[in-house]
Amino acid sequence: MTRIDDLPIRDELRGKSPYGAPQLDVPVRLNTNENPYPLPEPLVARIVERVTEAARHLNRYPDRDAVELRTELAAYLTRTTGHAVATANVWAANGSNEVIQQLLQAFGGPGRTALGFEPSYSMHALISRGTGTGWLSGPRNDDFTVDIDRARAAIAEHRPDVLFICSPNNPTGTAVEAETVIALHDAAQDAKPSLVVVDEAYVEFSHRPSLLRLIEGRRNLVVSRTMSKAFGAAGLRLGYLAANQAVVDAVQLVRLPYHLSAVTQATALAALEHTDTLLKYVEQLKGERDRLVEELRAVGCEVTESDANFVQFGRFADSHEAWRALLERGVLVRDNGVPGWLRVTAGTPEENDAFLDAVRKLKKESTP
Amino acid sequence: MTRIDDLPIRDELRGKSPYGAPQLDVPVRLNTNENPYPLPEPLVARIVERVTEAARHLNRYPDRDAVELRTELAAYLTRTTGHAVATANVWAANGSNEVIQQLLQAFGGPGRTALGFEPSYSMHALISRGTGTGWLSGPRNDDFTVDIDRARAAIAEHRPDVLFICSPNNPTGTAVEAETVIALHDAAQDAKPSLVVVDEAYVEFSHRPSLLRLIEGRRNLVVSRTMSKAFGAAGLRLGYLAANQAVVDAVQLVRLPYHLSAVTQATALAALEHTDTLLKYVEQLKGERDRLVEELRAVGCEVTESDANFVQFGRFADSHEAWRALLERGVLVRDNGVPGWLRVTAGTPEENDAFLDAVRKLKKESTP
Repeated sequence: MTRIDDLPIRDELRGKSPYGAPQLDVPVRLNTNENPYPLPEPLVARIVERVTEAARHLNRYPDRDAVELRTELAAYLTRTTGHAVATANVWAANGSNEVIQQLLQAFGGPGRTALGFEPSYSMHALISRGTGTGWLSGPRNDDFTVDIDRARAAIAEHRPDVLFICSPNNPTGTAVEAETVIALHDAAQDAKPSLVVVDEAYVEFSHRPSLLRLIEGRRNLVVSRTMSKAFGAAGLRLGYLAANQAVVDAVQLVRLPYHLSAVTQATALAALEHTDTLLKYVEQLKGERDRLVEELRAVGCEVTESDANFVQFGRFADSHEAWRALLERGVLVRDNGVPGWLRVTAGTPEENDAFLDAVRKLKKESTP
Repeated sequence: MTRIDDLPIRDELRGKSPYGAPQLDVPVRLNTNENPYPLPEPLVARIVERVTEAARHLNRYPDRDAVELRTELAAYLTRTTGHAVATANVWAANGSNEVIQQLLQAFGGPGRTALGFEPSYSMHALISRGTGTGWLSGPRNDDFTVDIDRARAAIAEHRPDVLFICSPNNPTGTAVEAETVIALHDAAQDAKPSLVVVDEAYVEFSHRPSLLRLIEGRRNLVVSRTMSKAFGAAGLRLGYLAANQAVVDAVQLVRLPYHLSAVTQATALAALEHTDTLLKYVEQLKGERDRLVEELRAVGCEVTESDANFVQFGRFADSHEAWRALLERGVLVRDNGVPGWLRVTAGTPEENDAFLDAVRKLKKESTP
């Protein structure tokens, strides 16, 4: 049988495995930061209406520039952040992964580098590598916050072409303060003109306001977003960015033409019509997230401050063993490879109860 | 106002424009090789059923490996080509453009090269550049066929890492014979182990059988396909490939996780249930394509032999001027930048009549 290594594949891919959490069939799945609430039936009905219309014209290519969708995304950002955003400031793609890939194709790539503060969203590093961009790992404090001075020093030393700031940060849940983002943006520009990508995939769950307003007057600052989490639409694969119009023009030089299908555009537009309902689920989840933090601490876990829909908890002498023990109790959480820590997504109250029960039992067993 | 060139964009993108045909609102649009027949209503109803089900689970990530869809695509290939293809031999992505991008990320990329015989599908060159793969332009004969000896010489000289063979070729409509593909595959392997991508986007419209059978015993040969044309689903953005299982494993190292949305998977599965109906439209379009060839010749045009759902016709002293003159008569065809030639998609009988009328008037005016 032919194996990957028998093929003329790129050397750096030899021996690698595909990225992705195990998709296991377990009663309580709290491992991929999905929203536990299915879309409400009135929204499903609206999706069906919009997709029916799209299906009747499916023989034609979709709107290559997704103008209607970008207009509604801009309206959503304007309404929820108070910062005026126009259609020309917004770009959309198949998940924020594709948004990031397009940004790296235009602003990173061969002979260029990207820097992020790890642990962070693994795809920043993986998509950098996938686009031929050199990856540089920047430092975090022991509490997983970003230290301005150490970060500035890393930027001055490495002079990256692209800087990633994930806030709230995945997998730690840590938010980055606006003044830190400004300081790192300025440090990056001092080193050399470079793109600063603020990944706000989880911002709707934050205690703090969006950093979107920072794009004003900063032409190299981009905010990336997703409908996977707050909109409860991980299956839709709709990511987007807001930035200076020139950045949107620039990604159009590298995007695959007609990258966003007519059914994706139709479904996303339907979901945007139901924003208010979906944001009510977000409020519920914020409450559950806060409860998880509190109860995990009550049973003696350490917990990282969270501004997201998930909580990093520990510490475990062997976090992979703890992950396995929870899985045996029917609860799937995420082992992100941060030594001593695991990550749990805020689920429904029932799912969270089941998770907390499993943790209590684990703690009881491991305490002599 | 900030312009693209004020940003820290890659040097090779400076001064470039986004790829894509003009999306103009014109009565007769025969410029992007779309299928003119809307999906039949029973298929629209089935899409709605499947999307309703998908929408009810949209808060969850889609099947990352799209197993059900790949199984049905494999069954379609097996049934229509007579060559047995398994799920493990098939991979799917957002349009064949994304399939090609993934192949180039895994087998091309920085420090590597790809070669295609031009004029051909422009995205082969553009995606090569977008993935940092050097692009090499191989030769065609004056009648747009590929000459084995000249092609072999180009392969031996350049030793590309990836070889593109587009059959039927876009924009010329020219098919490549199986023995030519085998000869070029062998020449490429003699030069160095390299990936051979046979782009069969239009193969359902061909007079000749698919080249899919050639993957047997050739681990570096890939056939790429799309549902945009024969399935009348350009708006769906569903491309796929068939190859040795190891190639499918390899692209999974570079694919963005969950790249294919649940609504895309659901819609494609519905379309695959209606294959027989859709292939009847293909038969009609083949008849119309043959009529276009015949009638264009009758009015004195030169026409390239076509195995696709489009026809390359000429010659014009100024093909862009001819394009503009047809547009003024309400017919949008494609100027692919092949000097002297234009490309027209086979539309409905009425659309083709309108096109032929416009060409006749154009010919009459230009004849003194």
